[in-house]
Amino acid sequence: MTDLILTTFDWVPEMPRGYVRDLRVRWALEEAGLPYRVESVPFRTRGVEHFSHQPFGQVPWLTDGDRSIFESGAILLHLGERSDALMPADPRRRGEVIEWLFAALNSVEMASLPWSLYRFAGDTEDTPGRQGLERFLAARLQHLESVLGGREWLAGGFSIADIAMADVLRLIDRFDGLVDSPACRDYVARATARPAFVKAHADQLAHFAAAD
Amino acid sequence: MTDLILTTFDWVPEMPRGYVRDLRVRWALEEAGLPYRVESVPFRTRGVEHFSHQPFGQVPWLTDGDRSIFESGAILLHLGERSDALMPADPRRRGEVIEWLFAALNSVEMASLPWSLYRFAGDTEDTPGRQGLERFLAARLQHLESVLGGREWLAGGFSIADIAMADVLRLIDRFDGLVDSPACRDYVARATARPAFVKAHADQLAHFAAAD
Repeated sequence: MTDLILTTFDWVPEMPRGYVRDLRVRWALEEAGLPYRVESVPFRTRGVEHFSHQPFGQVPWLTDGDRSIFESGAILLHLGERSDALMPADPRRRGEVIEWLFAALNSVEMASLPWSLYRFAGDTEDTPGRQGLERFLAARLQHLESVLGGREWLAGGFSIADIAMADVLRLIDRFDGLVDSPACRDYVARATARPAFVKAHADQLAHFAAAD
Repeated sequence: MTDLILTTFDWVPEMPRGYVRDLRVRWALEEAGLPYRVESVPFRTRGVEHFSHQPFGQVPWLTDGDRSIFESGAILLHLGERSDALMPADPRRRGEVIEWLFAALNSVEMASLPWSLYRFAGDTEDTPGRQGLERFLAARLQHLESVLGGREWLAGGFSIADIAMADVLRLIDRFDGLVDSPACRDYVARATARPAFVKAHADQLAHFAAAD
């Protein structure tokens, strides 16, 4: 089997630790039991080599043989195609996983990550744009709450869609945004109790702590 | 060949016309020359049947035989797998298209759509959170500008990645957010000059105008 290499930053500040996106990839690799190793690039100076792998200067990227893959969504889909533990082979079930993978990233995170920037900045100004952003996230969570109230995982068994969605919801929860969404909170608790998440999370914290 | 059915709203207010997400699907279907028909659901009252197809109460969804697919990203990927005009079959090239599809939706639109909510609201308050959102979008556009300065399309020939990215950039441009990004503006001009875009855009405007 080809060696898989996950590349992330060598160090990040305290605040994002445990939430850097290499977590999604670590988690998937652990769920699938695929062997991999972790390499680092400098957080403070991002050179031409970095941008050649990740055009926005972010992390992670995954090296699989002679391919280098960026975007955590694309990496999850790539790994899903390598392991039944991450995505079923049946075309209909596979299609449902892909829908929910995009939903996590483009329907929920598109509302929640900008919202979290305000919480991160400690910004409490109640302006019309801010109200729009709050309503945007609240509407998405309200509908997701209905979905998660009726099922254990998004698309049949646990899949890459749950890795993406649970990680998106974790960041909302960190800023107390799931107070009115008990089914979403229960879902995050179920997902983060999985041994693969626990190991991935501990490994990310240890990786950054080692560089302090 | 199976009949493809694209479902969108029966009517929307003036403001979003020309920018409703069924455009991405119309555009892909026109590029691929796949026959399809358009059906409508009420904009004002969204019932149980609507949520059974699109759990966030949004549009579009695509019906392909006995499958119903939501999330424009998932629909584009589904259509890409049906047509070489939208995504090459070669695994490496296909992988690059998928990376850029996710980049459009999760690296650029995640910054730009919330930003556009402020412009839409006419909100000019300069708060710390707002500054964070402006910096978030500016950084993504700066890196995308470098990429698009050196190539015609994102991943080899024109693909579903360009449909997603050009449509994301169009909305930024509408609110004058591409003033400092000439390569992005040129790219939008190239993409929207394609006959398939022109027809898709005209068809969307006509669809909503017919309901006035």
